[in-house]
Amino acid sequence: MADPWQNAYDYAVQVARAAGAVIRKAGEDEIKVQTKSCAVDLVTQTDERVEKIIIGSLKEEFGDGTHCFIGEESVAQGKPCILTDKPTWIIDPVDGTTNFVHGFPFVAVSIAFAVNKELEFGVVYSCLEDKMYKARKGKGAFCDDEQIQVSDVKDINKSIIISEHGTDRSIEKVTKIFSTMQKILRIPVHGLRGSGTAATNMCLVASGASEAFFEIGIHCWDIAAGVVIVREAGGIILDVDGGPFELMSRRMMSANNDVIAQRIIKEIEIFDVVRDDAPQEQRQQQQ
Amino acid sequence: MADPWQNAYDYAVQVARAAGAVIRKAGEDEIKVQTKSCAVDLVTQTDERVEKIIIGSLKEEFGDGTHCFIGEESVAQGKPCILTDKPTWIIDPVDGTTNFVHGFPFVAVSIAFAVNKELEFGVVYSCLEDKMYKARKGKGAFCDDEQIQVSDVKDINKSIIISEHGTDRSIEKVTKIFSTMQKILRIPVHGLRGSGTAATNMCLVASGASEAFFEIGIHCWDIAAGVVIVREAGGIILDVDGGPFELMSRRMMSANNDVIAQRIIKEIEIFDVVRDDAPQEQRQQQQ
Repeated sequence: MADPWQNAYDYAVQVARAAGAVIRKAGEDEIKVQTKSCAVDLVTQTDERVEKIIIGSLKEEFGDGTHCFIGEESVAQGKPCILTDKPTWIIDPVDGTTNFVHGFPFVAVSIAFAVNKELEFGVVYSCLEDKMYKARKGKGAFCDDEQIQVSDVKDINKSIIISEHGTDRSIEKVTKIFSTMQKILRIPVHGLRGSGTAATNMCLVASGASEAFFEIGIHCWDIAAGVVIVREAGGIILDVDGGPFELMSRRMMSANNDVIAQRIIKEIEIFDVVRDDAPQEQRQQQQ
Repeated sequence: MADPWQNAYDYAVQVARAAGAVIRKAGEDEIKVQTKSCAVDLVTQTDERVEKIIIGSLKEEFGDGTHCFIGEESVAQGKPCILTDKPTWIIDPVDGTTNFVHGFPFVAVSIAFAVNKELEFGVVYSCLEDKMYKARKGKGAFCDDEQIQVSDVKDINKSIIISEHGTDRSIEKVTKIFSTMQKILRIPVHGLRGSGTAATNMCLVASGASEAFFEIGIHCWDIAAGVVIVREAGGIILDVDGGPFELMSRRMMSANNDVIAQRIIKEIEIFDVVRDDAPQEQRQQQQ
């Protein structure tokens, strides 16, 4: 049987590339002409503009009312963030907005697609590096046209682990995050890294540059595409407590294999976050 | 008067590019055919081979006995690490060896040149990104052919700060490093990053992607080229206690301006390291 979503997959790659070009140009044209100190508003504008371009393009192609859209900016503006059985696009227009403001070289467009609550494909375009990562369920993961796979390292002492400090600066969370990182470093591992974008971090795991990336506090749009890419590159996705991964839980462990994942999970100090699909009032309270 | 070191500067750029091509090829050809778990020996081989290529090329051109050479691998093998008034090349053949093993995308060749103990020029070739950073004293800093400059941010809350966890895993050092990072994050700043190579980190400061990078424990060959590049991009180089920078002290703070530098310096918890120009027995004791 022909793949019912091949067309959507191909289209997502095109849309991601076009969106990435807009982001790159916004960075070159506009950030350069203002002082960086004033660039935060620009980012929000670019985020919103790129999301409109992406959702607009997808609606033009698939907008018969059967498809749903979950986008970072739309949710921020009050749209619901609920995954139903309908074909659903999950979109982060600019993953790594802090990097974008600073011209730090990792900024990604992330587009994923789920049907019956199952992720079908994911596309991550790392637009400053000009690398297109993509994966269709059951058909492998690719960077540009080269198939990628996770690292074969099983010895934790030979691993590079990625995590992020997140955006929450509360003492409780920061303390737990640093305590976790410190314990992992002293296992010891080869090193700790962080690109500043979850989507790119997952692609670094998928392409074997890092053995694992985990984070508490990420959103579904940051990771949905990366989840398919890591799985199709031979890796695994779990909850940070080792249980099954849930897209809306804001907790995610991605790893090259279960040995590495379980060793890291032992060190993670978990803190509470409000789920992406919680009522809006709850989500706003936490911010 | 014609620049007496223009020829040496141009030659360094050529040599760095050629060395970077060797590293890239070693990564593609050889790391792929073995499991990553066995790649550590390969790295040492590549380090040594590339350093021999670089020093061999430079000696062929400038080897009349008036030039000295300080290279990471030569020093590891017992050669002295003393900066004299003679024209001296300071070389890190592969900065970011952990990244190199893992295919993590920041690996650099670093070549600097000092005369009368003053750094005259620096070349950093980020060979996986294919970006050539270079600076000649008094003549500006460049990435490929584009002049670069540090960020204009003076508000610490709008900064991205780079630091690294280093390679020493002793509890005292790791605790101080994490405590410093945690205090900086909670100033708060926009984010903390680390590419895994000091040379590249300095180029990220020079090109405005980050406001500051500091580290205790780096070696002169990691940073000598970057020091010229940051200075020529309009930035400053200090000791981590705010005093004057010393190339052999293994302590370095690079920043876009003094406001940012001083604010970060307030948070740095300093620990002891053996100087690069200490007697070999002392240096070995610390390892």
